[in-house]
Amino acid sequence: MRESEIIALIRERIAAAGDDAAVLPFRDTNLVLTTDMLHRRTDFPAGTSPYVIGWRAVAVSLSDLAAMGARPLGVLLALGDPDLESGLVNGILHGAIACCASTGTTLVGGDTDRHQELTLVSSAVGEAARPVRRRGARVGDAVCVTGDLGRTQAALRLYAAGDLAAADELFAFSPRVEWGLRLAPYATSMIDISDGLAHSLHLLAQESGVGFEIDEPLLPVSTAATQGIPRAELREAILFGGEDYELLFTVPKEAIAVIPPTVRFSVIGNVTEAGVRANGHALPDTGYEH
Amino acid sequence: MRESEIIALIRERIAAAGDDAAVLPFRDTNLVLTTDMLHRRTDFPAGTSPYVIGWRAVAVSLSDLAAMGARPLGVLLALGDPDLESGLVNGILHGAIACCASTGTTLVGGDTDRHQELTLVSSAVGEAARPVRRRGARVGDAVCVTGDLGRTQAALRLYAAGDLAAADELFAFSPRVEWGLRLAPYATSMIDISDGLAHSLHLLAQESGVGFEIDEPLLPVSTAATQGIPRAELREAILFGGEDYELLFTVPKEAIAVIPPTVRFSVIGNVTEAGVRANGHALPDTGYEH
Repeated sequence: MRESEIIALIRERIAAAGDDAAVLPFRDTNLVLTTDMLHRRTDFPAGTSPYVIGWRAVAVSLSDLAAMGARPLGVLLALGDPDLESGLVNGILHGAIACCASTGTTLVGGDTDRHQELTLVSSAVGEAARPVRRRGARVGDAVCVTGDLGRTQAALRLYAAGDLAAADELFAFSPRVEWGLRLAPYATSMIDISDGLAHSLHLLAQESGVGFEIDEPLLPVSTAATQGIPRAELREAILFGGEDYELLFTVPKEAIAVIPPTVRFSVIGNVTEAGVRANGHALPDTGYEH
Repeated sequence: MRESEIIALIRERIAAAGDDAAVLPFRDTNLVLTTDMLHRRTDFPAGTSPYVIGWRAVAVSLSDLAAMGARPLGVLLALGDPDLESGLVNGILHGAIACCASTGTTLVGGDTDRHQELTLVSSAVGEAARPVRRRGARVGDAVCVTGDLGRTQAALRLYAAGDLAAADELFAFSPRVEWGLRLAPYATSMIDISDGLAHSLHLLAQESGVGFEIDEPLLPVSTAATQGIPRAELREAILFGGEDYELLFTVPKEAIAVIPPTVRFSVIGNVTEAGVRANGHALPDTGYEH
């Protein structure tokens, strides 16, 4: 099955599917729950340090909470590996704990397992009185993205070139938890860019039943990307390269001025009636399928 | 590293380790969180149906919540597999959803991943105003176990013999959530038997700083085990065979009579000052290490 078919199947079966995380009403608030499976062959280029493996394994789930505007309460990490060698386990735990701390939460538990391939599954629990969904974008809203794009694609090139320290630094992205919390009162829809900007735009448009018109010159490109990716490949890397884990969101235009200035974001386009277009042309829904 | 060394390492790093699940104070109650990784080679004998794979993948985490006396709020399931063939994915989801429903909870989300080997990681979130720990057993308490023992070992023999339907039925154990909730007001310590009765006794004794004296004739042996396991191997299977996922707990003797009669349990011994003994002899701490 293709991942999209499995997701369709799961959506039939699981009511809460269709957002970055599941929402569970609890007392006078909501618990927000997410889980992510990563493994060496697909998710960690050769040369990724154990610390960054642990950091990133946790960061992907915290990013899902960020996209819901949820405050993290705790993280679990399951770790499978053939050898569970102490340097590896220590490094992964160290990175995972540090990433949790960077968003004000803690690693509260886990599991280990002998496994043919290094496999990490993080699960995060958060809280949000009013979680931000993918489905609230309205025609006329502004389309925005936090931070800048292309860091992960630049990191992959640095790993391939053997510049491991620089690659690790770019690859250990900061989950935008704080920004997600500050955006939550204003954002009409939100998603994290885990599979390319283009694919994330299509998911958000589909869930909200709207379209987007993106102005490509407004896309925030990271210095790492402009320096590390050949000019001819930059557009492809930014739009379809995936895994930047920035927040893509929509807001009413009048809200742009009141978003707290500590949130670094760019307006990149407008919400339209239908179709995902960039610079006036249809933007294909091609992204990174895990 | 041996699993016990990793656990020691994790315990240094994670404050909440040392119980079946992590406890996170939240509002006027506690969230209880657990995660478990299973994979085909170690955890699912040849012939296990997709339904039972999904059921069991979720049941192990619900059993952890049961051992804390927690009420489940929701379950997440991450699924990795080389092919993600629709019959397999459908069967696993069906079993996972049914197992959740059997304890009054729901599968709220998940993740899928292409993976070399079938790998399942369930994470469960529960709630317990007063979670039951492993560390509260007191000298003079009675040692008890729910249900009966040896079903999993009997199931493994049935899988090996090709009697797959009968094996599946035994292997899809019922997580003792309802019993855990009813025991919580009385139990001074509790753990689920996921690694053999002997190993679970040692863990509970160690955490509580006590010993146990077990009376072997009092051990509740399942009909499936007496019928399916040769008499000469039965003691080994019951004490060290592992994975029965019954609840092992201690209670003050005066509480035995007031535990609700809907909880099926047996008194199997007494809490002593030190040492884990059965029929007067030291019981070795050998069990199933995953």
